[in-house]
Amino acid sequence: MSIIAEMKLFMEPRSVALAGVTRRIGKGAFNTLENLLAIGFKGQIYPVNPKTKEILGLKVYPDVASLPMGIDLAVIATPREVVPAVIGDCIQRGIKAAIITSGGFAEADETGKELQSEVLSIAKRGGMRIIGPNSLAVVNNFSNFTSAFVASPTDKIPVALVGQSGGFLNGFAGFTSGKSIDLGNTSDVDFPEVLQYLGDDPDIKVIALQIESMRDGSKFMSIARKVSKKMPILALKIGYSEEAAQAAASHTGSITGKAEVYQAAFEQSGIISLRSVDEMGDVARAFINLPPFKGNKIGVITPTGAGGIMALDALSQHGFEPARLSPRTVERIKEFFPPWSPPTNPVDMIAAAITHGYGRVYRYALAALLEDASVDAILCICGIPTLEAIQQVAGGKSKPVITWVAGQWDESLLPKVKETGYKAIYPTPERAIRALAALREYNCPAKKA
Amino acid sequence: MSIIAEMKLFMEPRSVALAGVTRRIGKGAFNTLENLLAIGFKGQIYPVNPKTKEILGLKVYPDVASLPMGIDLAVIATPREVVPAVIGDCIQRGIKAAIITSGGFAEADETGKELQSEVLSIAKRGGMRIIGPNSLAVVNNFSNFTSAFVASPTDKIPVALVGQSGGFLNGFAGFTSGKSIDLGNTSDVDFPEVLQYLGDDPDIKVIALQIESMRDGSKFMSIARKVSKKMPILALKIGYSEEAAQAAASHTGSITGKAEVYQAAFEQSGIISLRSVDEMGDVARAFINLPPFKGNKIGVITPTGAGGIMALDALSQHGFEPARLSPRTVERIKEFFPPWSPPTNPVDMIAAAITHGYGRVYRYALAALLEDASVDAILCICGIPTLEAIQQVAGGKSKPVITWVAGQWDESLLPKVKETGYKAIYPTPERAIRALAALREYNCPAKKA
Repeated sequence: MSIIAEMKLFMEPRSVALAGVTRRIGKGAFNTLENLLAIGFKGQIYPVNPKTKEILGLKVYPDVASLPMGIDLAVIATPREVVPAVIGDCIQRGIKAAIITSGGFAEADETGKELQSEVLSIAKRGGMRIIGPNSLAVVNNFSNFTSAFVASPTDKIPVALVGQSGGFLNGFAGFTSGKSIDLGNTSDVDFPEVLQYLGDDPDIKVIALQIESMRDGSKFMSIARKVSKKMPILALKIGYSEEAAQAAASHTGSITGKAEVYQAAFEQSGIISLRSVDEMGDVARAFINLPPFKGNKIGVITPTGAGGIMALDALSQHGFEPARLSPRTVERIKEFFPPWSPPTNPVDMIAAAITHGYGRVYRYALAALLEDASVDAILCICGIPTLEAIQQVAGGKSKPVITWVAGQWDESLLPKVKETGYKAIYPTPERAIRALAALREYNCPAKKA
Repeated sequence: MSIIAEMKLFMEPRSVALAGVTRRIGKGAFNTLENLLAIGFKGQIYPVNPKTKEILGLKVYPDVASLPMGIDLAVIATPREVVPAVIGDCIQRGIKAAIITSGGFAEADETGKELQSEVLSIAKRGGMRIIGPNSLAVVNNFSNFTSAFVASPTDKIPVALVGQSGGFLNGFAGFTSGKSIDLGNTSDVDFPEVLQYLGDDPDIKVIALQIESMRDGSKFMSIARKVSKKMPILALKIGYSEEAAQAAASHTGSITGKAEVYQAAFEQSGIISLRSVDEMGDVARAFINLPPFKGNKIGVITPTGAGGIMALDALSQHGFEPARLSPRTVERIKEFFPPWSPPTNPVDMIAAAITHGYGRVYRYALAALLEDASVDAILCICGIPTLEAIQQVAGGKSKPVITWVAGQWDESLLPKVKETGYKAIYPTPERAIRALAALREYNCPAKKA
């Protein structure tokens, strides 16, 4: 079976056995079956629990040995001691893929390390692939599938999130992914296999990786080099401090490598390296919401001088330059500006707005900059009420328009953001410009700053 | 008149003249009078506009010369050419303080520079103090006073924001301030005067500064040294890149200094230096919501291993250490944990939570860490639903408990944050730990990292 076909058993199973599913339901029950039903899984489900015959209206099997043949995937959540036997039984029933969510393996103690080796050798002999142990889940919103015992957002976003932690699946990154995989202890299936599957996946446009450690760096790099030509791969390496590296050893049972080694490997593989968890969402959103971008000259529209200054600081931090507006652009908008303050870049438009109307000046300025060939991309500094106008003027254009929405992001404003449907919204100039820099890096790696 | 008495004319006027107020009202009118009425100002208002006799039911004076004597403050928004004459008239009417919101002065062109000098010498001769020109406003929610032509939040938060940009007044910093001052071109009143006033202000517990440039650095430092002993002063210097420094010259008409010079001055004055605009809100919220903090040993409670690793990375970045839990603490909570995974710090509690209940384990762990003398402060990694439990257990305790609320901050979650009333909430581990580091820096400057 090809790697991709194997990965489809995990990501798009037609049938799934749940070994060690709990009888408890409702809040705090952490019931995978309940979660799987809630997400609307269309395939067959085979719950296994010796203590009951029915959960949530589904027939429950007393043990794996009683299951019918030909089930695609097993999700195993039993106590660690019995996992080897359960894996053996699964193989007997022809199951070729198992997600082990149970903990207490290589991340825990010597007994756990031995158990993990035992599981792995049984699986290898039986031709079975393993995700985990100690994996929270695989989630695929495009197939309404989840092996998680907690709910996660169900949007079919074309971003895949692959990591070694359930926290990332469940929202750490501050953005919604359409597919996500917690590789846990990576005893068998590791980043290379998942990259190969996602690189061939028509549902996915961006891949985001959260990496603590990796077994086979050169295999990873060789696949990443190919996949990164098709779609951007973002990577966040965590555990760079000494204390964190120790903690990682007891999290996934593996040794983290030096941060610099990972940085070099990312660079050589065409991977965009991230420095913090919020960058992951910021950059992923830029890739799915903005057109490709190569240039270096940024136009800035701002209702405040200080905003423009902060934007310029952020541009310089990422190796961008403020665009020099063409004479035609200046000609088009200068009528709005006081004679003692003709438009330059940043276009500081508050004085013009007071006389000629805020929305009117903003639209004119943005339209002029969009048509100015000396402007490669535009940063709009604005409040939420201006987003609609920006969307109307910039929508469908081939030039990236990114926004720094200044001010408090409180509950009264967020529904308005949603209404506009405008997604290239960032809360600080640094974050907006960082996201633009990632777009440029992907389309023109030489310009990485 | 003392500096503080002079500043009170600007911040807590009993009566205000609005020279050059617009007749237009409603959305997009940028009408200061309308805004001042909306905020509920209790003092006397004297609008001045030669073209009308009434605005919003208030008597309008045709010119400043017609005003009664004894008005505390004038807000001047006339075209730049007439500002010198208006200032002269104000002085004739006994007005001792004026906020000039008009632009087109030293930030614009040579004519503007000359006008600003003229205004200043007239004011000096007449014993009048000036804020501006090119100042958006002064806002004092404690006195229901604003000179702004745009609305801003009205909460009586004990944080004062002093800057050179209206953008900061109006929400750039992502937090609400109870008093704020845009110094504009700082032709007369500058940071030292405002610091002196705020240092003596019972309404204010934290001062946040946004600085582009400064005229008298040594006066500033001498006052800041005294004030920073009474309350924390935070400062964000903007305009560190070359392009930004040029833009700053055309924003407030002044030359920005080298970033390093400002850093050194801040350090010698006991000022906490900020690197980005979101840090300003993050740190200010920590100071008003958390108890004082000196130590270096942090306890971490986390439902995910990766979260713990990221927290440790952030701790090491800011010179903190993970606390070593006392034997008593381990004893108190170990019954919840699997034998192969006894509690350590970070307290990775998900396995325990699955068996014993999420909220129950979280409360026990937090209570134990709060009583552990080897833990100086606690970072709680959690989702929004856990905030209430954290507030119940940690509320009123003398140890800082800061939270990294992981996951998406969308509109469905924010009302819940508000409900809990729990304010020490941060969206990334870096930002939470940075805020803790600022608390430590204030109470124990030697430990700055």
